[in-house]
Amino acid sequence: MTQGMPKLEVCLSPALLHLYDTTDTVVVIIDVFRATSTIAAALHNGAKCVIPVASVSECIEIGHKIPNSITAGERDGKVAEGLEHGNSPSEYPGAFVEGKTLVLTTTNGTRLLHMVKNAHNIITGSFLNLDAVSDFLLQQNKNVLLGCSAWKDRFNLEDTLLAGAIASKLKDHFNVNCDSTRAANYLYERSGGHDFTSFLKDSSHYLRLSKFGLEKDLEYCTTPNLHPVVPILKGHELIVHK
Amino acid sequence: MTQGMPKLEVCLSPALLHLYDTTDTVVVIIDVFRATSTIAAALHNGAKCVIPVASVSECIEIGHKIPNSITAGERDGKVAEGLEHGNSPSEYPGAFVEGKTLVLTTTNGTRLLHMVKNAHNIITGSFLNLDAVSDFLLQQNKNVLLGCSAWKDRFNLEDTLLAGAIASKLKDHFNVNCDSTRAANYLYERSGGHDFTSFLKDSSHYLRLSKFGLEKDLEYCTTPNLHPVVPILKGHELIVHK
Repeated sequence: MTQGMPKLEVCLSPALLHLYDTTDTVVVIIDVFRATSTIAAALHNGAKCVIPVASVSECIEIGHKIPNSITAGERDGKVAEGLEHGNSPSEYPGAFVEGKTLVLTTTNGTRLLHMVKNAHNIITGSFLNLDAVSDFLLQQNKNVLLGCSAWKDRFNLEDTLLAGAIASKLKDHFNVNCDSTRAANYLYERSGGHDFTSFLKDSSHYLRLSKFGLEKDLEYCTTPNLHPVVPILKGHELIVHK
Repeated sequence: MTQGMPKLEVCLSPALLHLYDTTDTVVVIIDVFRATSTIAAALHNGAKCVIPVASVSECIEIGHKIPNSITAGERDGKVAEGLEHGNSPSEYPGAFVEGKTLVLTTTNGTRLLHMVKNAHNIITGSFLNLDAVSDFLLQQNKNVLLGCSAWKDRFNLEDTLLAGAIASKLKDHFNVNCDSTRAANYLYERSGGHDFTSFLKDSSHYLRLSKFGLEKDLEYCTTPNLHPVVPILKGHELIVHK
């Protein structure tokens, strides 16, 4: 821990966000199962942008206004009524998504993203773009907040594990005096640093989603660096950082 | 995980307490550094009861009303103005505390204790009474919430580590499907299950308190089973459960 380095902290739930000052900070929104995984996949596969929205009705409304758009979102593991597609990263191959605007409604991730105020930048992180996000954070030389989307405000293992993976890559370059970050790091060490799928098989969210037959999706979402892009928020749109 | 068993959950911060239903639940208030450690020490050493209060002024007021009472509490590592004693468990040997009422003001632990509603019982836990608390919870056959007092609502390692130690002892007898409990368990495993002092030397709170020269206190607070009592709330008083 050295003075003068930028600070890195982990926020374990949107219900704790008020404890952190995000002014001039780079905030990483993490929603591993599955919003920020799907965002990385869609943008890497050539989507023009992703517009994250909170509600199904807003998703439909914005989808109507934008030509060449896809409306997507799930509730309880199924495509939400009135929308066209789901939350799975595997639904967005290049042949389908290239050049299109994905209007995506998710609950936990989108809510957190809209709660962040005065950040220098907001980006999204997942295992699918782990190294790309870590490299981006290294280059910025700004304070960093890794924001776990959690599940209805409850702490979850998968988002915290990713926060630990990012923190572990960055810890020599940031001032870390935050017990949440220490705990996230321990989780990452405990996972062995590679087989995230196995480590997460015992988590609440995995157990919940696997009841919907989504095991393949969960494996996809825990595979590191398949989609090495940095989605960055510009106005209301997430685009690939160049 | 078996249906029919009572449920065990861990709440990582008072700011997350609203997510848990504490009705008919046994709630364990955990404030390792140092309120619930001091409570265990004082009661084991013969104090008649401990009255936890939120503010210094309330502490003084109640102290005036109760004969043979001690008013205690710290702010920023020093005895608070108007009070007689501090927050250290080592300040309350039997020769001093026996038969007396300890009116104790602390910030994080007391606040959490007063936030809990409709519980079956509220008890306090620390490393000093780890096994006594675990045995008590086993006997109750009720849902359990391990409530970490945290630090100004921020997650902390020491309270979560104790929650993990308790959960680890109870996991075969409770239904555990809570990622916070899983994470707390991993921390406990990572600590090796015995040398809690070393494990916590890198925590925020340890670093903060050791600046006040409180290392010996921190060692005391992380020593398992020195004070094997179960402090239980009856009205406004914590007394030893018989």
